[in-house]
Order: sequence, then C-alpha cells, then structure tokens
Amino acid sequence: MVRGPLDRAGFELLATESDRPAPPGCTSLDSQLGFAIRRFCAPLLGLEPHAPAEEYLAQRARLGPAEVNRRLLSAAGVGTFLVDTGFRAADLLTPAELGAAAGARAAEVVRLETVAERVAAGGVTAGGFAAAYADALAAATADAVAVKSVLAYRHGLDIAPEPPTAPQVRTAAGRWLRRAEAAPQRAGPCDARPGPPRKRSPRDVSPGPHEVSPGDARPRTPDPAGLRLDDPVLLRHVLWAGVERGLPVQIHTGFGDPDLDLVRADPALLTGFLRAVRDRDVAIMLLHCYPYHRQAAYLAQVFPHVYLDVGLALNHVGARAPAVLAESLELAPFPKVLYSSDAFGLPELHLVGSALFREAVAEVLGGWVTAGRWSAADARRVAQMVGAGNAARVYRLRGADHGR
Amino acid sequence: MVRGPLDRAGFELLATESDRPAPPGCTSLDSQLGFAIRRFCAPLLGLEPHAPAEEYLAQRARLGPAEVNRRLLSAAGVGTFLVDTGFRAADLLTPAELGAAAGARAAEVVRLETVAERVAAGGVTAGGFAAAYADALAAATADAVAVKSVLAYRHGLDIAPEPPTAPQVRTAAGRWLRRAEAAPQRAGPCDARPGPPRKRSPRDVSPGPHEVSPGDARPRTPDPAGLRLDDPVLLRHVLWAGVERGLPVQIHTGFGDPDLDLVRADPALLTGFLRAVRDRDVAIMLLHCYPYHRQAAYLAQVFPHVYLDVGLALNHVGARAPAVLAESLELAPFPKVLYSSDAFGLPELHLVGSALFREAVAEVLGGWVTAGRWSAADARRVAQMVGAGNAARVYRLRGADHGR
Amino acid sequence: MVRGPLDRAGFELLATESDRPAPPGCTSLDSQLGFAIRRFCAPLLGLEPHAPAEEYLAQRARLGPAEVNRRLLSAAGVGTFLVDTGFRAADLLTPAELGAAAGARAAEVVRLETVAERVAAGGVTAGGFAAAYADALAAATADAVAVKSVLAYRHGLDIAPEPPTAPQVRTAAGRWLRRAEAAPQRAGPCDARPGPPRKRSPRDVSPGPHEVSPGDARPRTPDPAGLRLDDPVLLRHVLWAGVERGLPVQIHTGFGDPDLDLVRADPALLTGFLRAVRDRDVAIMLLHCYPYHRQAAYLAQVFPHVYLDVGLALNHVGARAPAVLAESLELAPFPKVLYSSDAFGLPELHLVGSALFREAVAEVLGGWVTAGRWSAADARRVAQMVGAGNAARVYRLRGADHGR
Repeated sequence: MVRGPLDRAGFELLATESDRPAPPGCTSLDSQLGFAIRRFCAPLLGLEPHAPAEEYLAQRARLGPAEVNRRLLSAAGVGTFLVDTGFRAADLLTPAELGAAAGARAAEVVRLETVAERVAAGGVTAGGFAAAYADALAAATADAVAVKSVLAYRHGLDIAPEPPTAPQVRTAAGRWLRRAEAAPQRAGPCDARPGPPRKRSPRDVSPGPHEVSPGDARPRTPDPAGLRLDDPVLLRHVLWAGVERGLPVQIHTGFGDPDLDLVRADPALLTGFLRAVRDRDVAIMLLHCYPYHRQAAYLAQVFPHVYLDVGLALNHVGARAPAVLAESLELAPFPKVLYSSDAFGLPELHLVGSALFREAVAEVLGGWVTAGRWSAADARRVAQMVGAGNAARVYRLRGADHGR
Repeated sequence: MVRGPLDRAGFELLATESDRPAPPGCTSLDSQLGFAIRRFCAPLLGLEPHAPAEEYLAQRARLGPAEVNRRLLSAAGVGTFLVDTGFRAADLLTPAELGAAAGARAAEVVRLETVAERVAAGGVTAGGFAAAYADALAAATADAVAVKSVLAYRHGLDIAPEPPTAPQVRTAAGRWLRRAEAAPQRAGPCDARPGPPRKRSPRDVSPGPHEVSPGDARPRTPDPAGLRLDDPVLLRHVLWAGVERGLPVQIHTGFGDPDLDLVRADPALLTGFLRAVRDRDVAIMLLHCYPYHRQAAYLAQVFPHVYLDVGLALNHVGARAPAVLAESLELAPFPKVLYSSDAFGLPELHLVGSALFREAVAEVLGGWVTAGRWSAADARRVAQMVGAGNAARVYRLRGADHGR
Repeated sequence: MVRGPLDRAGFELLATESDRPAPPGCTSLDSQLGFAIRRFCAPLLGLEPHAPAEEYLAQRARLGPAEVNRRLLSAAGVGTFLVDTGFRAADLLTPAELGAAAGARAAEVVRLETVAERVAAGGVTAGGFAAAYADALAAATADAVAVKSVLAYRHGLDIAPEPPTAPQVRTAAGRWLRRAEAAPQRAGPCDARPGPPRKRSPRDVSPGPHEVSPGDARPRTPDPAGLRLDDPVLLRHVLWAGVERGLPVQIHTGFGDPDLDLVRADPALLTGFLRAVRDRDVAIMLLHCYPYHRQAAYLAQVFPHVYLDVGLALNHVGARAPAVLAESLELAPFPKVLYSSDAFGLPELHLVGSALFREAVAEVLGGWVTAGRWSAADARRVAQMVGAGNAARVYRLRGADHGR
C-alpha cells in the first residue's frame, strides 16, 4: 500500500483502472468497487456499512494511514502475500512490511520486464544482453515464488509461439538499447510515454485468502533508470527465460488500465505459446482474464499446465463477484482455480478482494449444494482448494497449509 | 413508428433483426421480443397478458395505428425522445409527431453518413467535399443533441485511429463520387446493394425512460438520392467531423441486422480511436454493444469520455434483460450508463424497451439491496442516474430534470 | 460408447476435453462434469448421488460395460440418436447397437472430412478428386440425416466465404495427395501429428432428449488409411459439397479439444459463408458454440437458415447448465434451438447431457413463468420445441414425434 496519506483525488484514482479523473459531476467511487469499499471497509473504520464517501474519507484521514492499513490488512485474513515488486515499489510497503502489518507471511513475484529494464539501465551490450539477463533473473528470483509477464501491456498476447533465436535477440537488444540512448530524458518505465502522467500499471497478484494472498512492496533494487521494454522479440525472450527458470509464470490477461488493448489481451491468443511450453513442466498462471475468463477456464481444462486466477476482476465487479466467479467455474477444473486480489496502493483492495471472494465462493457453491447439484462435502473441498490449497501446491509455499 | 397499418408479415419483420421472413413453420414472434410484446402490450390493448399472437395482431388491426401508437407511447413514460432521423424517415413519424403522440419532448440525433450522402446527392466535387460536408453538418445539427455513426454497418469498427488527411479525403471522395455516377440506378442508401430488399438498418436511439427516450421521425430533408457511404477513409472523415462538431457522438456497436459483421462490431476495436479523441472533450456514446457489453463497460471505466447504452439489447433479450443489464453494470461507472430503446417502426418497442429497463433496474439493484450489498439510498440514486440524470447531463437536455 | 472396460485413467481422459492426464495430485473428475456424473449416474448404478469417484468407478467395473451402458442409455430418455460415425468408429458401438442398447431409433451423420480422407486412401488423382468426392459423399449419405464439418479443428472458421474454383480444388488436391504419399508412415487421421497420442476429436452430436439424441458408432467403412484433411481449399470444397448435398450441415464451433484454436472457432467468423449460402435452402446447424453461444444465437436470429445447438457445453458446465442455456435463449428464436449431448465414449455423457438439459429447461423456463415473464403455455410449447420438435422438423426424422 501507499505509505503516506491520500487526498480524495488520489484515493479516487487508486479505485479505478482509469488513469484520469472522472468527468465533471462524476466520481469514480460511483462504481461497484466504490460501493464495495464503503460496504466492507466502513465498519472496520468504525462507521456504518455504506457510509457516504465523504464520511468514509474523512474518517480514513482521521485514523491515519498506518492505522487504516493495520485494520484493513489484518481483517483480510490472508495467510501469505505474494507480492509483485516490479512496479513503483519505492512508494509502497515492502513484502516484509506488508506481511508485518497483516500478521502474515509474504513472498515475492519477480516481474520479467522489470529485470530486463534493470539490466539495460546497468549498462549492457546487445551481444551481452541475453547472458546478462539470465544472470540477473537468476539472482532476482533466488527467493521468489513466481515470475510475472506484463506482455499484454507492452505488446499484446498475439505473439509468435516459439522463443526468438539468439541472433534475433541480439538484433532486437541493439535496437532497443540504441533507442533508449537516443531518449535520455526518460525517467522510468512508467514515465516513458507521452500524455498525462500514468497513475500505475499491472501489479501484484497472489493466491489464497485463507492461506496466501497478494500485496505490494518496495523492491530490493531501485527503479530502473529509463527503458520501457516493449520490443516484441525481447518480450518473447524474457517470457521464455521465465519458462526456463522453472518457477510458475504469471501472465496478465484481460482488462487493466487503458495502456492495454483489450482485444489483444484475450488469453486464448496464447494458445500457440501454451502448446509450445506444454512439455516444460512449468505452471502458467492466467491472471484476471475478464471478460475472457471463460476462455481462460477452457485453457485450464485442456492444458494440464495452465491455471486460472480471476484476480483483479472480483474487486472491480463488486456485487457481481458471484456471477463472475461462477462463470470461471464452468470449464476450469477445480484444482486449477486460484484466488488473488491484485491489490495495489489501497489496503481497501486487500480487504474487499478477500471479502468478495469468500462471499462469492459461499454463495455460488452453497447455492449448488442447496439445489442438490453438489454435495456439501465437495463444496467444502473445492472451497479449500480455490481459497488456499491450490496456491500452496502450485507456488510450493513453505509453511503454508496445503489444504488439509 | 410506421404511420400506416401493418399486416402480420410486416409486423414480424419489424420484430426481429433479420431482414427475411422466418423459415416455414416458424415465426419470428417465438422469441424473447415476441413474448415480451405479448406480455407488456396486450394489456394496453385490452387483452390478457401473453394473449396469443393472432389475437394480439387482430386486436391491433381493430384499434388502428393511431390508437395503438397513442396507447403504447403514452404508457412508455418517456420524458424526452432523442430521434435518429437518418434512416427511412419518410415512412415514419417526425420527432415532433412522436413527442405529441406520447405527450413528451423530442430532440434530434443526426446521422453522420446520411449527411454525407445528402451532400453527394446534391452535387459536389471531390475537392469540395470536405468543406461542403462541414457546412452541411453544421446546418443539420443546428438544433441536434447528438450525432451518430453507423460505421459498424458500413465497414466495421476496426479503423485507423487518426483522422485521414485532406488529400486522402479528396482522393477517397473522388473515388466514391465516380462510383456513384457509374451506378445511377441506385435509388437510395438502403437499396444500394444486391439481394432481397433490406428491411431496415441501424436506427434511432436515446436515453432515459423517466425523462428522455428514443423514437423515430421524418427528417427535414428528403432521403438522399443514391450513394451509400461505405468508403473507410470517408467514414473516418465524417466520424472525426462529428467529433469536431462537439456534440456527443453515438456509435452503433455490437449486434444489429445481418449487414454487419459481428466480430468487427466489438466496441473494444475502437480503443485506438478512443485514445485519439481523449483530449477533445467530446462524449462518445457506445450504443447496444451486445454481446460485447462487458467490453464497452470496460471502456467506460478507463476512458472518462466514454459512455455505455445497451439500447437495442434489452428489447431483444426480453426475460433476460436483468441479466444483461447486470453484466453492463459490472465495470461501467454508474454515471456512465444510459438508457435507450432503439425503437424503430413499432410503438411496441418503445413500450417494451422502457418496461424491460425499469423492471431490470428494479430487479438487479433491488436484489443487491436485499442481499445487503448495496444501500437502498445508493440504489435509488443509481436508478435515477441511469434512467434519466446521466442522459440529461451528457446530452445537455433543455427542460429535462437533471436528476435532482 | 466404448465397448470394453475402462480403467480410471481411461475414464478420466474421456471425461475432459484435455488430451493428457491431469497434473500430479489432481483429477479431471474434480470438475463440473465429474460432479455431474457422480450426481446423476451414481443412483443408476445403485449408489448414493455424489458417491466418491473411487466408489463409483469400482461399482462401474463390478457391473461391467454392457450393464452400465444399458442402465445409463435407457435412462437417458432419448427418442432418436443421431450419430457422427466419422471418428474412431471401430472402437465404438454402431448407431444400430446404440439404439438397441437404449431402446431408441438411430440415424447417421456423415463427417465431410472423413469421406475425403477415405477417397484419398482409396486412390485418386488430383484431377479426379472432385468427382470422386461427390460420388463418395452421395453414397455415404444415402441414408444419413445430416453432414458435419470439423473445419474448426482442421483450420479455423476464418475462411473465404465462396466455394473454391475447380482449378483451385485440383491444385490443392495434388498438393495434399503428394504430401500424403511423402508421409506413408501415417496410420490414420488421428495419428497423423506429433506429440502424445490424441485421445479423440470432435464427435457425434444430435438433437432432442425427448425424441432424438446422439450416440456413437462403428462406421460401415474402415478408418481411412493415412491422410488428415487440413488444406483450407479442400476444407472449403467439402463444406460446399455438403451444402450441395442438401442435408442439414452441422458445423463444430466453439470449444473442443486442444487441437483447435479457440479464437478461430467463434461462429461469427462464419458470417460471410452464411451470407453466401443464404439462398441454398440448406439448414446450417451451429454446434456447441461456447463461449460464443451468444454470437451463435445472434446468427440464428438474423439468418433464417441458421440453427443453434449448445451440445457439448451443457455436459461440461454441469451445475451451470441453466445459466448457459439461458444465455443461448437471449437472441435465438425458439424454433432455432436444438438439443444434443455430443456424447463420446462414455454412456455417462448421454445420461448427464439429457438430465442437465431437462433440468436447465425446467429451471430457466419455469423461472420465467414464476416471475410472470412467460406464460406457462408458452414455456411448455418452447420446451417441446427445443427438446424434440425442432430437431424432428429440421432433420426430417422419420417416425419421430414432430412436436404435437
């Protein structure tokens, strides 16, 4: 979460995927997410559920960030936070700080593109890029539980399925590094484009409200100094390097901020890539996926190495979380479905994500039990899987309850 | 609405998006829309709800068009009709006549492509087209509340995002005008293609059952004399001319009659265009959208200038209106959601559209209140927004209740 | 169904669209389909509903395949099985055997690609292919009720809409036949690709739990000896030959096993083809469709010759069958909606398919009646249509109750 206090404008921008304020006369809090925050978080700050937004923000300011963080994080009931440290980490709590505030374990997810940008910022030749990247990734992931790709933001998921060749990587690295030298004014990967300053970008994600869950963090290295990796050859190269590393590979799919092109974020566009890595014994975690979560669930059924995590979506659809969860439970085998909040910036997102997930699981599975479609024992078993056991198994979480 | 009486075949064709009769042994009234008409309209004609179709049509004929129009329109409870006058206007009531029949206000929406076809029909050179179009659009929209694009029907939404250059427009206009001269037999924009006569095409749309709503009308100018605008360069040009005009720009997206290619009507294909017009302070109204209404709702969240109106969809999905409305309320901020009926030809469509919308809002929002997910006060506030306030604000409707 | 006994691994592979075992620690039976099998089939084998998978499989083995087949098939309540005999027919019951086991009628659906592979295996020149194919198709379909295309598996639905010319067919046939000669080791259409042995492929489908329904069968000819038809020109040619034959043309669309690319299986990609065959008086049956069933329903509304059958989907979504059926009943006119199970290999799929369909129809239509949205008489009429009458009419089933 953000360390310092937030004014109303700052809070509003962290409660939407938009990167700009709402139009005059409108507020981004008149949304499913805004209503869910007021419903679930107001009581934890000592207000009535659904307290008006002004009242909520005033009370939030009165209590101060540390107290608000503590109250909301500890109520989220998360066992382990898996934190993507690859974006704006300097402004945010580290994984360790996040875990401490919540009384929970924490582990790191390493963003593949951020490592490449750090390698470039540290100085590297085109010919030396591939080896330097491999070394840097090995070092960065020594204690990590997963790697993550934001290919959807940087290019789109419509990529050639095979890894690029070494000469292709060298040529692309040369082109990218020269472009970076020619644009020395660039201050960071998130400020590297025209238009109003970007608020944020795809973020941390992680599994399991009962045993494991997401957060955000300050990385152990400073933000890279200037290169935004958006070359499709290099994006494929780092994705394949992530596969070679052997940890689960998280891939952002589906909706996100307006940097991405939704039609190019359909996870089904990854089909060729998924076939190509089928024999690598590496888990591919499709994150968010909405509104293509049925497509993602299909992939999780037909490919043994593919998993599904609707992440970000539940927070944003609020009262509709049961409907979206139910759709993702149509084709996906239940050992392939995980939870995350994708929370970024606001402690509210950790609390609301886990509250909506628990409510959705109870309503959807409970409804099937009531209707005689599922047995109560199966419903309990599946709730445990999707809430904690699957994440503990796939991410090999030490110390986590693997679902017994 | 159509002025004169309708036989069964004529009625059936106006109650489907198909342009041909149902196959032998079938009727287009065995559909959600057909069932909704019999449910909501039969009582207003003095029959039982769900009266058989034959009985309904016989009673309709007995009462005559003027009486049927009066009964159904006045029961629709629409405050202001916003009427697209760009298609088959000569057969239909004018906005003023429609308002009079319903006891409501009425305003006009000007179709961008129709203005271009009128300019061409009036005689213009390739070099003079851009200026003549700008003049004609200014004149046509002097009292209009919005412009409308049917790009989805004429080409598809997969366009280059930027406006064409002046030389590109001149070249394209020359090509189009020459083609038109070579095909002098063309009688009108809707008769300009091979195959059986087209029944109709995308139509009027407008917001707000409580305060504002759609209709159809006879335009102040005759139908253009022969050119169907389907050149992608000119379609982009008139779309950008609409943006320059400064009024809200309605864009037909999603399903419609079989002229369009559904996969090219996904509103997410407009992402590049939406980025390009982001700083123009012009509202973009995505109409209909189904089955891509979740994509449209995403765009309405991330782009401050984008709005969503499921229009046509609710009428056609009938008993499923609550489900479709609920999906559109997942990502879309509530100040960005509007109502329209897209009614064309049949007064039934005005009545059914507003009845289904009211019922869907009550069921969906009321369900969230009952489940404790929303407060009753929020539900009332959002119902007022989506039913009237948002339309009054965005279309700057004079005399309309802006939602207080 | 499979003739002989099945071990757990074999059973699991027939209860998923995946072609590989679930990952370690997981089972493909932890899925909606697995839960639905335990719910509906366990009582027919003398166990409690939802009996554990181990118990179910043990009881299944105790009873033996013939008894299990008899119990499950006769309980499915199917009037006529329409059986696609084009895939792995030698391992499976013939249509006649299937009908006998179930106490029902049976009829055949001929797979267009399989006929082409048989023609090639029998020896043919490039120049003689078109005529030989026409003769073979006429002979193969003498008693058939429909033909079927698996274009989605062999190429994708993104094809040129018009038929290829005779010279194009000759050239493509030469290329295909030469490729086949150069790869004499190929043992059959399903073994013709690298990777682990393919479990299966798109399959039989057919309508109507009350009166007609699908199955599987041993064909009257042996499996072809070596050629997998995947040339796009020839795939279009055999599709058009199917249209010329005049029987209903079934087209697999939407999800299936991992051979297909989901984004290329969207039925809306067929729009150009559907326009091109609009005047041929041939019914086009879109099968499965999920997750694009709303797109398919749209096509069934706007094109008089297009029908929709969510087939395979209901079995796989299990407890969610009512939700998926309801979505397919939004835009599709009710005389255009049919039932099939797409059952392959397991008698469980016949039983579960029809049980889920009946339950979904009762829940969805009954819910609309309870809410006052539909009349009870309409609901009964539509249930009869989609369950039997539409299939009997479109497939011209002799001896079937046409819905009176």
